[in-house]
Amino acid sequence: MKSNYKTRNKIGLLSLLLILGNLVLAQSTDEDQLREIYDSALTEGKSYDWLNHLSNQIGGRLSGSIQAQQAVDFTKSKLDELGLDQVWLQPVMVPKWVRGTPEFAYYETDPGITTNIPITALGGSVATPPKGIKAKVIEVQSIAELDELGADKIAGKIVFFNRPMDAKHINTFEAYSGSVGQRGSGAKEATKFGALGVIVRSMNLRLDDFPHTGGMSYGDTPENLKIPAAAISTNAAELLSTSLKLNPDIQFYFKQNCKQFDDVQSFNVIGEIKGSTHPDEIIVVGGHLDSWDLGDGSHDDGAGCVQSMEVLRIFKAIGYTPKRTIRVVLFMNEENGLRGGKKYAEVAQKNKENHVFALESDSGGFTPRGFSFDCTDENFKQVEGWKNLFEPYNIHMFNKGGSGADIGPLKDGKIVLAGLRPDSQRYFDHHHSDNDTFEHVNKRELELGAATMASLVYLFDTYGVETIKK
Amino acid sequence: MKSNYKTRNKIGLLSLLLILGNLVLAQSTDEDQLREIYDSALTEGKSYDWLNHLSNQIGGRLSGSIQAQQAVDFTKSKLDELGLDQVWLQPVMVPKWVRGTPEFAYYETDPGITTNIPITALGGSVATPPKGIKAKVIEVQSIAELDELGADKIAGKIVFFNRPMDAKHINTFEAYSGSVGQRGSGAKEATKFGALGVIVRSMNLRLDDFPHTGGMSYGDTPENLKIPAAAISTNAAELLSTSLKLNPDIQFYFKQNCKQFDDVQSFNVIGEIKGSTHPDEIIVVGGHLDSWDLGDGSHDDGAGCVQSMEVLRIFKAIGYTPKRTIRVVLFMNEENGLRGGKKYAEVAQKNKENHVFALESDSGGFTPRGFSFDCTDENFKQVEGWKNLFEPYNIHMFNKGGSGADIGPLKDGKIVLAGLRPDSQRYFDHHHSDNDTFEHVNKRELELGAATMASLVYLFDTYGVETIKK
Repeated sequence: MKSNYKTRNKIGLLSLLLILGNLVLAQSTDEDQLREIYDSALTEGKSYDWLNHLSNQIGGRLSGSIQAQQAVDFTKSKLDELGLDQVWLQPVMVPKWVRGTPEFAYYETDPGITTNIPITALGGSVATPPKGIKAKVIEVQSIAELDELGADKIAGKIVFFNRPMDAKHINTFEAYSGSVGQRGSGAKEATKFGALGVIVRSMNLRLDDFPHTGGMSYGDTPENLKIPAAAISTNAAELLSTSLKLNPDIQFYFKQNCKQFDDVQSFNVIGEIKGSTHPDEIIVVGGHLDSWDLGDGSHDDGAGCVQSMEVLRIFKAIGYTPKRTIRVVLFMNEENGLRGGKKYAEVAQKNKENHVFALESDSGGFTPRGFSFDCTDENFKQVEGWKNLFEPYNIHMFNKGGSGADIGPLKDGKIVLAGLRPDSQRYFDHHHSDNDTFEHVNKRELELGAATMASLVYLFDTYGVETIKK
Repeated sequence: MKSNYKTRNKIGLLSLLLILGNLVLAQSTDEDQLREIYDSALTEGKSYDWLNHLSNQIGGRLSGSIQAQQAVDFTKSKLDELGLDQVWLQPVMVPKWVRGTPEFAYYETDPGITTNIPITALGGSVATPPKGIKAKVIEVQSIAELDELGADKIAGKIVFFNRPMDAKHINTFEAYSGSVGQRGSGAKEATKFGALGVIVRSMNLRLDDFPHTGGMSYGDTPENLKIPAAAISTNAAELLSTSLKLNPDIQFYFKQNCKQFDDVQSFNVIGEIKGSTHPDEIIVVGGHLDSWDLGDGSHDDGAGCVQSMEVLRIFKAIGYTPKRTIRVVLFMNEENGLRGGKKYAEVAQKNKENHVFALESDSGGFTPRGFSFDCTDENFKQVEGWKNLFEPYNIHMFNKGGSGADIGPLKDGKIVLAGLRPDSQRYFDHHHSDNDTFEHVNKRELELGAATMASLVYLFDTYGVETIKK
């Protein structure tokens, strides 16, 4: 009995040592693997060069534009060069909205005394009449305020939505959420009170001269009641607001000739490395290839595209053979339709594909801080177990929350969805404006983001997704 | 007995509840106080406006220059406006090194076939002879390599130190530490082997055209053996290195007429709020007011100065009455002498002042990530207890390590020294070059840094320093 007890104890001790040994080995292997991933991104990365081409040789890539097609061709050719197992284009019909000739605006304090205003049509807006619109301005801070004012004070005027993003938010995306409603629904609501048009303060925490475009929707507004909507720069919004206090009878003039055409054919760009042991479990990493037509879309979302491509480049470069299928998807039409994301999920469902994890980068190419996860508590607990692996890279934010617009349609209650969370302070200085250009992307910050994404993909590939693991 | 027991238990319970209540209250008060600090910095902060003046109206502030004196006058006048208890100038003699006319350099592949090279004299270097130096180049990666090559291969040549900063470091300051030795001591070592001059690859992780200056020392090199030292841009270093591989007989020419003058009078700028209950315990928050003469010194270290001033502005604005004396110190001459930091510590010691905590911001005005602490384990444990208070602000790095050059001389084994640690990725793109300018500072990032500093100062003021508390 005593001897038996000792033997059992010895076996127990041996097992324990073996288990501990394996744990230590696994941990040290993961540490080494992450180090190799970061080293590759920082010393032989291709993301910055790819972004340079996408931004400076192609430029803004609005859905349905020639530039969007050039971006499809360019990224496909680069994926082809990576020696993946398969690269293909997935057809998707996308809306085609065209800005036309540059918008023009001014306000007039006395007849003939005008001040020009930097302005940009909101994406999806109708044009003004060819001669433009000239009318008095009524300034509001919110859609709710329209109700209070009523048609008496709004009809025949241009509604000026001037609620600034709230600087007190540490995460600038929260400040954005708190103000973007006036951009998205301002025109739809203001037309109900007989407004002639809508101008919105740009979604930008900085005071500067860049007007920022962005999506808007008329909902079910009848065609004849659709009124034109545009954004003016934050400096212009401040100036106009001050001028209105001095003289409420100021006339505002703006002219835009943007137009919605019929849908056109475009593509999601897809490449994959087949999984060695679980090829049917698919991990997606992606960003969106389309952008607005202002600037060159470097942060939104050229950065996310080249980072996603870089994840697969890194795996090939360091000779990592994934167990699961790793797929990069460059989604088309996030900005004004989300058609690419919807199409991808639709095809995945039709083909009964088993997506286990999807990661999107669509918050700019700034220093990565962590991830936001849309998943079960069980899967989030799994992720939290990896936090210490990311510490040497200053990756510390692991939150539950949203993920990314394009991967959202994959949500099925089982898949883990995640979004890369870079530092958000500078993002809205550039977002949807002429100021979103390549020189505002830092090479190392972009590369660190790609390595951080590759590291999380590596971990989910190695250990599987807790609730799906076979 | 039973009754007694019950009574004691009741008293015990009451005490426990009171203690718990106080703990919860204290925590909630601290949370509120930090929120108020950040709100003030983000919505009514003055740091960005002050930096605008320092950078765009004054510019580079090399010790002993007119601009350095203008910076002293400007910051003193701004501190005067804050309604502090005392503002004063602390005299300090500083070295005066002057760059003179812009440097000029080229390399010559064949007689008359030249390529111009962006170059800047290193701070403290001697001039070339008036006609410049023209000689063959020997490229090395380190000072150790000089020994291997010996005088045979070095004498009569220009030594080209071309070790890049190592991109694999996540913290770019570690990459800097690994390469800056060749800048600091290259000339002192190369002259021992008969070199005529030294050119150094700029301390910059980016490939671009900005030469980056910085301090160097001749140590005890005799006057007649001092050789001129300069930095060339990273692009130029790559080009020169490639060209040398094609043709090792390339001639390099450079000319500079910088000069060291006698020491001149300058000042540390100091302001304080007297402590209400422990006025003799002094907390210092500071940065350095001098900069190099290239660019306008916005990140190095205009940012740290205005952030330190902002800490006191915030306390006044939110009506916080510090228990301990809070002193802002804008140190003169960090870049080429550290005279301000040494003088401040010398006067403090002479006056038997009791410094309990000092915090420096001298790593750029980028998004704050945390602090590095030079203190005892006991004090570090105290700091770690506050980590959760900083979480809402994404402040997560609390490490033991260095603090700041200017506050270093205060070290006495008891004082807690700390350095603000902003995100380091972009810092060396700007450091000591024409590229360190105001437009590269983001208003919110700068303000978040100031609020983060104010929060730590608030906590040390409220709770005292563990090892010093009375």
